[in-house]
Amino acid sequence: MGNIHGQNFRIATFGESHGPAMGVVIDGCPPRVPFDINFLKSELARRRPGQSALTTQRKEEDLPEILSGISHDGFTLGSPIAIFIRNSDQRPQAYAEMKTAYRPSHADYTYDAKYGIRAIEGGGRSSARETAARVAAGAVAKTVLKHACGAKITAWVESVAEIKMPTPAQTPSLKQVEASPTRCPHPATAAKIDALIRAARAEGDSVGGVICCVIENLPPGLGSPVFDRFEADLGKAMLSLPATKGFEIGSGFNGTLLRGSAHNDEFIRKGGKIRTATNRSGGTQGGITNGEDVIFRIAFKPTATVLKPQRTVGPDGKATELSAKGRHDPCVLPRAVPIVEAMAALVAVDHWIRDRGQNAPFGRCGRKA
Amino acid sequence: MGNIHGQNFRIATFGESHGPAMGVVIDGCPPRVPFDINFLKSELARRRPGQSALTTQRKEEDLPEILSGISHDGFTLGSPIAIFIRNSDQRPQAYAEMKTAYRPSHADYTYDAKYGIRAIEGGGRSSARETAARVAAGAVAKTVLKHACGAKITAWVESVAEIKMPTPAQTPSLKQVEASPTRCPHPATAAKIDALIRAARAEGDSVGGVICCVIENLPPGLGSPVFDRFEADLGKAMLSLPATKGFEIGSGFNGTLLRGSAHNDEFIRKGGKIRTATNRSGGTQGGITNGEDVIFRIAFKPTATVLKPQRTVGPDGKATELSAKGRHDPCVLPRAVPIVEAMAALVAVDHWIRDRGQNAPFGRCGRKA
Amino acid sequence: MGNIHGQNFRIATFGESHGPAMGVVIDGCPPRVPFDINFLKSELARRRPGQSALTTQRKEEDLPEILSGISHDGFTLGSPIAIFIRNSDQRPQAYAEMKTAYRPSHADYTYDAKYGIRAIEGGGRSSARETAARVAAGAVAKTVLKHACGAKITAWVESVAEIKMPTPAQTPSLKQVEASPTRCPHPATAAKIDALIRAARAEGDSVGGVICCVIENLPPGLGSPVFDRFEADLGKAMLSLPATKGFEIGSGFNGTLLRGSAHNDEFIRKGGKIRTATNRSGGTQGGITNGEDVIFRIAFKPTATVLKPQRTVGPDGKATELSAKGRHDPCVLPRAVPIVEAMAALVAVDHWIRDRGQNAPFGRCGRKA
Amino acid sequence: MGNIHGQNFRIATFGESHGPAMGVVIDGCPPRVPFDINFLKSELARRRPGQSALTTQRKEEDLPEILSGISHDGFTLGSPIAIFIRNSDQRPQAYAEMKTAYRPSHADYTYDAKYGIRAIEGGGRSSARETAARVAAGAVAKTVLKHACGAKITAWVESVAEIKMPTPAQTPSLKQVEASPTRCPHPATAAKIDALIRAARAEGDSVGGVICCVIENLPPGLGSPVFDRFEADLGKAMLSLPATKGFEIGSGFNGTLLRGSAHNDEFIRKGGKIRTATNRSGGTQGGITNGEDVIFRIAFKPTATVLKPQRTVGPDGKATELSAKGRHDPCVLPRAVPIVEAMAALVAVDHWIRDRGQNAPFGRCGRKA
Repeated sequence: MGNIHGQNFRIATFGESHGPAMGVVIDGCPPRVPFDINFLKSELARRRPGQSALTTQRKEEDLPEILSGISHDGFTLGSPIAIFIRNSDQRPQAYAEMKTAYRPSHADYTYDAKYGIRAIEGGGRSSARETAARVAAGAVAKTVLKHACGAKITAWVESVAEIKMPTPAQTPSLKQVEASPTRCPHPATAAKIDALIRAARAEGDSVGGVICCVIENLPPGLGSPVFDRFEADLGKAMLSLPATKGFEIGSGFNGTLLRGSAHNDEFIRKGGKIRTATNRSGGTQGGITNGEDVIFRIAFKPTATVLKPQRTVGPDGKATELSAKGRHDPCVLPRAVPIVEAMAALVAVDHWIRDRGQNAPFGRCGRKA
Repeated sequence: MGNIHGQNFRIATFGESHGPAMGVVIDGCPPRVPFDINFLKSELARRRPGQSALTTQRKEEDLPEILSGISHDGFTLGSPIAIFIRNSDQRPQAYAEMKTAYRPSHADYTYDAKYGIRAIEGGGRSSARETAARVAAGAVAKTVLKHACGAKITAWVESVAEIKMPTPAQTPSLKQVEASPTRCPHPATAAKIDALIRAARAEGDSVGGVICCVIENLPPGLGSPVFDRFEADLGKAMLSLPATKGFEIGSGFNGTLLRGSAHNDEFIRKGGKIRTATNRSGGTQGGITNGEDVIFRIAFKPTATVLKPQRTVGPDGKATELSAKGRHDPCVLPRAVPIVEAMAALVAVDHWIRDRGQNAPFGRCGRKA
Repeated sequence: MGNIHGQNFRIATFGESHGPAMGVVIDGCPPRVPFDINFLKSELARRRPGQSALTTQRKEEDLPEILSGISHDGFTLGSPIAIFIRNSDQRPQAYAEMKTAYRPSHADYTYDAKYGIRAIEGGGRSSARETAARVAAGAVAKTVLKHACGAKITAWVESVAEIKMPTPAQTPSLKQVEASPTRCPHPATAAKIDALIRAARAEGDSVGGVICCVIENLPPGLGSPVFDRFEADLGKAMLSLPATKGFEIGSGFNGTLLRGSAHNDEFIRKGGKIRTATNRSGGTQGGITNGEDVIFRIAFKPTATVLKPQRTVGPDGKATELSAKGRHDPCVLPRAVPIVEAMAALVAVDHWIRDRGQNAPFGRCGRKA
Repeated sequence: MGNIHGQNFRIATFGESHGPAMGVVIDGCPPRVPFDINFLKSELARRRPGQSALTTQRKEEDLPEILSGISHDGFTLGSPIAIFIRNSDQRPQAYAEMKTAYRPSHADYTYDAKYGIRAIEGGGRSSARETAARVAAGAVAKTVLKHACGAKITAWVESVAEIKMPTPAQTPSLKQVEASPTRCPHPATAAKIDALIRAARAEGDSVGGVICCVIENLPPGLGSPVFDRFEADLGKAMLSLPATKGFEIGSGFNGTLLRGSAHNDEFIRKGGKIRTATNRSGGTQGGITNGEDVIFRIAFKPTATVLKPQRTVGPDGKATELSAKGRHDPCVLPRAVPIVEAMAALVAVDHWIRDRGQNAPFGRCGRKA
């Protein structure tokens, strides 16, 4: 259990890091939505390892194969969409040491504690490779959202370790985010982050940071109080990603420093719509979207794999020392950007369908029924 | 939708702030667990309004009535446990202004946007009064956890606005937390927080802050990767509470400032068990509990109700000014402490049952089958 | 677990037969639907014990109390609707023998086997009294369906033991069904059934039979292949009722005797719509409604409580003899009619909302948003 | 939605009849269960088209590929098990007529009504080919059940059209069932059924019938009243299969003809266990297994595809005549036997895990933790 996400737009993911393939089955996608496999490929390429000098050098083409759910002329059928991605770069031998020593702050020990058995090679299901399936599902979710309400999702790297970009005046464009392999849209900060990650790699160490994400153009009314508040589902989705340690929406932890009179978002009338003058709420009130941008941040810890020697114990409980060897990803944040967007899209489309129904007409953009 | 929580230990809550009653139905409670109504009452009393000068002066006895699920001699039957709590202090007339003006940073507008109808009086379902049902369910969950694995949950107020207590050497006791109406277990800080809240009340303003919570004695192995990670479910539960803006576990946002070599928790052998030397992970790795304390923090924004005049619009879109009158809760944090504990208990017991089954024997503490 | 029904229109029921109350929480009811408490009461009255000489003489007023979810002017709010019904006629002493002997074909033994504890009095959760909560929820579901699509649900007693009414030319009216306490709409058959049930009572014995049910005016398109086919969900709902042993839709078991060429429903054009010339399919094809009447049958076994002596064993495994005393319901079918309708309404409204969304506008009948 | 089955042992299936592949993702399989791919293949072979002269001549190898969830040495990992099966025999051109005419009693019209788009070739998702994924999942479920409690599931063809075998004295063996391509274990009846199916094929017509199924060795205590009764979940699972029109358990519809005193199952003590002297209940009481054999029947209508000309209309509403050509399956029952068993296994394992937990130890049979 635990590998199915969503209530009305549901995904079931599968795949071990060094098994034959990763993949996803999407149940509940509305019918008649135009599907673009090139968009799916480009999203997977943004997450793909080996895309720049800043990330792990594992080589994966990450070419998706669509097994079901799409018509011959490229529209969703309303039936389950199955996508799978072959693993090509499997090096089980590189992980021999994992049998005899639990890697600190990895999931080796807890998987043994829970399951009593473990796919030794490369972390199995706890590997970040698992997120490839999420990005594939997210590409479908983004497509549905675009046609349903024009919603757009943009994430970017806001800080790495102690280096933080200034707050942007407006949401960066995809082009600005993709301009640097760091996925930090502020060029001066991006340069510093680039240098920092290279330095961490050289030292065999790793760094964490914060990703910021914005969902634009969501209609008011999404979210299901009291338990399935929009931000609660967003938070769960983000905290289900490997290496995440925190989530905040709108003013977040810093908002606790303000007085209520300074924190409240006054309502105004603008362009014929009810809007808020400020957006400390981050786009939701009472767990329901209010039509403003949904804005949130996620904390990623520094990658657990470091090349420096560390004390640990093995499955037999004996103390030992571990020095990781070979490939290592000194900072997951640049590659986590499309993953964050994918999870945001999955949450938003799930709530949209819950509100409007699976067969809400796609008159404008989808194929006519 | 949205009023049911959990997968194997499920709760359905109901009740509008100024309707006849609040309540909960619990489905999936294991049988033969000794049930203590006095514990239920004491938990509700900790959340009750009017318990100190620091909180809202609404008067509610919050006496629970058990309608089902408990045997004559006080054991759970395995059938649904229904608990309801009458609302006594209903003052619909105090909320007349809510009909003509959306209160800033409240859910008035978003409820109208979603449902097209609203229980005008006192916030209806979006009122913090809704959390009484959660605390009732949480009392049952705490009881099951105690008998299942001896788990104990303790939350406390760590900061209010800019006033923050020092990090405690060990988890505070319930007695230490309850010693001050602020529920801050550090007496010097508690005194400052007390003064700050009184000042905010006097100014007709409000303050927010951070609650810290620890779950002790959970066994390793709880949590269901990849989507239902233990901390993901915790995060969702906390972010489903009114006024929350952030969640972090273990090192959280500050952990992003460390290098991996400094952040990792080395494994050691201690007392015959595999333990970690530090606990920056916060008690989970890969989404599964590792047997260490689960430690997390929640950010609460300053209460939206302030007595100062604010600009807003009404349902008709016309600009207006709003000055709240009457009772007002300048800081929700002290009363939120038992609510946070309740949600933590609900998440933990849900995962425990998912792992062990609904009918896991309670040989030691429960009535013999 | 097991006390929550539905996916998008969800109900959680509670209550032991001789506990303080029965009840239900409804989560997911669309907002702005006019709610009529008199209709709720009349539905409960149809299920109420003691309504005629043919049923159990337990005295229950079955007066519902609405605790939440309805606005002051009588519209659904979109928030959970909680309804509870006090138990008044509690006679724990009448069930003393249940402690020492498992009643044959009752759930005493299996509840002990599953839970290791049991509400001894009157069957606890396994009592047919539990269905009062279903009827209350069904009244809400029927109201939503009426306003959503004009759907109407009618059930009736088709046979009791070997006495069976002829197949009616058209769906009987509610008035025809209610004309006899047997709820068989064919007067001559009703008279025979009435006599049969009285004879069974006089002999201390019991009888079973078949209920037929029709849902009219459902739109084409409801049902979610492959697992949540409309008839699969209907079947589950009916088989979740006490004493049911079988379910069939359309031609059912007798349909297995026909050749395909004789069984198929040819499509025709009628009144500008695509219709079928016959309805052996029973209103669904491929698990999706086709716009024809949904027609199905449910088999109820003879009531397990008989006054004749029976061999059995007790919890200690010792053989004994049991003779039930006091009140006894010789035939559950007349009272099961509104229960069957309630479950059908719950299934239909759940699929309607799944298809159209929780907030599908109720422009015509509901209050304007 | 609708393509995910189960609560704690969940499966998500996918695949259109003439798309690239069919498959399933299994979430919640307990870890450390020995997995035998040959058993999986043999189960698929029992469902495979073209296995005898009695079934469709579509040629499919139905070779499964395991993509995840199994360790190198053949044990389940507790992570999702993904299985997929390539479609090889695709003949889109054979279905050209389906574009212009709705096949009577097929799902062509209802899929159009629901989705507004349809995989024209061979029925898409509504094809019986979809059940290949169920059989694959069922093979895993059967394996878990065998190791968990020794449960065994056997289905067989009891009747085809008007030809019915006598009630067997004991549950037939797999060998007896497989002895005839009809899967009727009574040789004389099997011969008549064989002849009947051949005659139906020769006439371009089709026949239906009844399958009986028994689950042996389930422990008492499985099933979750009130809605998720064991037989309710069984009924839903069976009614989710294509072409089913009815389900009954134990005495079923015929049981309605008995008096209660004759229908009740008296309890006796036998072999140190509490048993029932008869089994009209069919292995459950109050929705919970009682340790007796679970016995139930499913009605399958005659296949909708017949070669005789039939009246119908097209998507444009115009009347037309349709004569199916090419391959046709005159009777689905022989191939439905392993599918019924698969669904029964999925229901039983889901309830077993719900009761005992996902990580119930498999000390005896599974790999030691």
